[in-house]
Amino acid sequence: MRIRGREYRSVWMEDGRVCMIDQRLIPHDFKIASYSSVDRVCEAISTMVVRGAPAIGAAGIYGMALAELTGEDLEDAYKRLFTTRPTAHDLKDALDYYLNSEGGPVERADRYCDESAERCRMIGVHGAEMLDDGMKILTHCNAGALACVDWGTALAPMRVARDRGKDVHVWVDETRPRCQGARLTAWELKEEGISHKLLSDNAAGYLLASGAVDMVIVGADRIAANGDVANKIGTLEKAVLAKEYGIPFYVAAPSSTFDPDCPSGEDIPIEERGDDEVTHMFGMGENGVFTRVRVAYEGCPAFNPAFDVTPARYVTGVITEEGTRK
Amino acid sequence: MRIRGREYRSVWMEDGRVCMIDQRLIPHDFKIASYSSVDRVCEAISTMVVRGAPAIGAAGIYGMALAELTGEDLEDAYKRLFTTRPTAHDLKDALDYYLNSEGGPVERADRYCDESAERCRMIGVHGAEMLDDGMKILTHCNAGALACVDWGTALAPMRVARDRGKDVHVWVDETRPRCQGARLTAWELKEEGISHKLLSDNAAGYLLASGAVDMVIVGADRIAANGDVANKIGTLEKAVLAKEYGIPFYVAAPSSTFDPDCPSGEDIPIEERGDDEVTHMFGMGENGVFTRVRVAYEGCPAFNPAFDVTPARYVTGVITEEGTRK
Repeated sequence: MRIRGREYRSVWMEDGRVCMIDQRLIPHDFKIASYSSVDRVCEAISTMVVRGAPAIGAAGIYGMALAELTGEDLEDAYKRLFTTRPTAHDLKDALDYYLNSEGGPVERADRYCDESAERCRMIGVHGAEMLDDGMKILTHCNAGALACVDWGTALAPMRVARDRGKDVHVWVDETRPRCQGARLTAWELKEEGISHKLLSDNAAGYLLASGAVDMVIVGADRIAANGDVANKIGTLEKAVLAKEYGIPFYVAAPSSTFDPDCPSGEDIPIEERGDDEVTHMFGMGENGVFTRVRVAYEGCPAFNPAFDVTPARYVTGVITEEGTRK
Repeated sequence: MRIRGREYRSVWMEDGRVCMIDQRLIPHDFKIASYSSVDRVCEAISTMVVRGAPAIGAAGIYGMALAELTGEDLEDAYKRLFTTRPTAHDLKDALDYYLNSEGGPVERADRYCDESAERCRMIGVHGAEMLDDGMKILTHCNAGALACVDWGTALAPMRVARDRGKDVHVWVDETRPRCQGARLTAWELKEEGISHKLLSDNAAGYLLASGAVDMVIVGADRIAANGDVANKIGTLEKAVLAKEYGIPFYVAAPSSTFDPDCPSGEDIPIEERGDDEVTHMFGMGENGVFTRVRVAYEGCPAFNPAFDVTPARYVTGVITEEGTRK
């Protein structure tokens, strides 16, 4: 992805350190975080310096490379990296790739990330075939280049369509509680010059019911063997609404997100995060300082599942690097 | 409603001024705003010092009383008050009541508000009959005492159930973009000692699908002759999800919210509000100062309808002061 005139990936290795775009700061600031120990990489994944299923995989495999370079026990590093976040399958896919492939530590991680980026590019190529000039697409959360090594999953078809001269419009769910749609997706689309408008998650039903949406495309954190899809909390709501109003609902995901050992959505572990993500909000204050504000009364109890499961029956098709499975 | 040891209504008249709880400050601060001109009352309604369909009606009728007391033209005052916010029918109901009733200015307005409060109390009585000990109820936005003169609409059944010794648990949608659920409903329930948890709007589908919700109860801003319901943006999503998962979806509304002259939901005007309600968030900073933070990139375009329409086919019943219409 091109940011401020330079090409970036979401995660890479440089001078023996795992580097990543600090996604907590976007769109307000652009900084590269870098880590020289596995523990710090684990912390970066847990605290969401990096997020998005394929990008978590990339951070994980560079963590493994770092473990080997610094002489840490690989089995132990695997365990610590694996338990940072429970839902995204790409993390396991990447860690297993490291253990089962040949070559030097950085070479193996780089190769995995090259392949991951290429998978996303191909999702874009296949997805773009479904997009016509003038189409209006709803997306949820951020499944863009930031969420992947590059290109994105749900946003890759829009990028490729744009490259082919098709003008599409993207409706962006803000995606509470962490607002990855408002913070990351809107910003990525602006950087790419793709038409977009932000909305509160609540307004998606209004749009779907009023005929303002031609297609929904979202990413995925894990796809079970029966086709059930775990993705950012709220995805289920959009899928049910899309079905109700007869609008195609597509999931864009590379093969690394498919978990053949997971029979169904009921078997996918759903991460619950802290109450403060719901009771508080984070952004740029008018004084130019990052600020956290409390919205609810102090101590208000909250429920904060980070993902939900969309049963396969609501999914029109899955756009993968090999084509669209319906 | 009892706040800090004193009984309050959301709106009242005192010493020739229209007084109201400043709902923009709750839960962080509790202040009474008061106005001595119709223009200032109009501004208070438009800027949501007072909000909630029956409470907007109360502010409107006290505005009419103020117009008469200060010698303003009544027809002109009616027009200015009527156009402050387009969706809630209670405003027209209250303004018409003023013109068509007998008695002194304050006497007419007080009587309307007494009747409005009693309607809400009776909604509580009828609604509480449907609630059993241990039930878990999802609500959206704030349809509590603050939204009415007193008692609330959607929250009135929980209050009456609690008074009758039934313990219910309330799941509270935060209700972006203005977060009336996080700011007002959670606070009202805490003040009343009713068990509750806050959630991002996105998590409601997860709860509905997982069997954690026995019933949904929401308020309404206008109910058309065919039973279609305009209510806070996002209500449609919860209604479609509730139907999908076989969970009863009730609307609680007094007769003042029914608009017999409005044939269907398509005829209800839907207010669109400013982009900044979506791109920014407002709350209490850690330094104890009210703060507005920007979440999206500067200038991000947004779409911000304040209400949506839930077709009658998704509504299990409407709880009114006369009983529940199914």
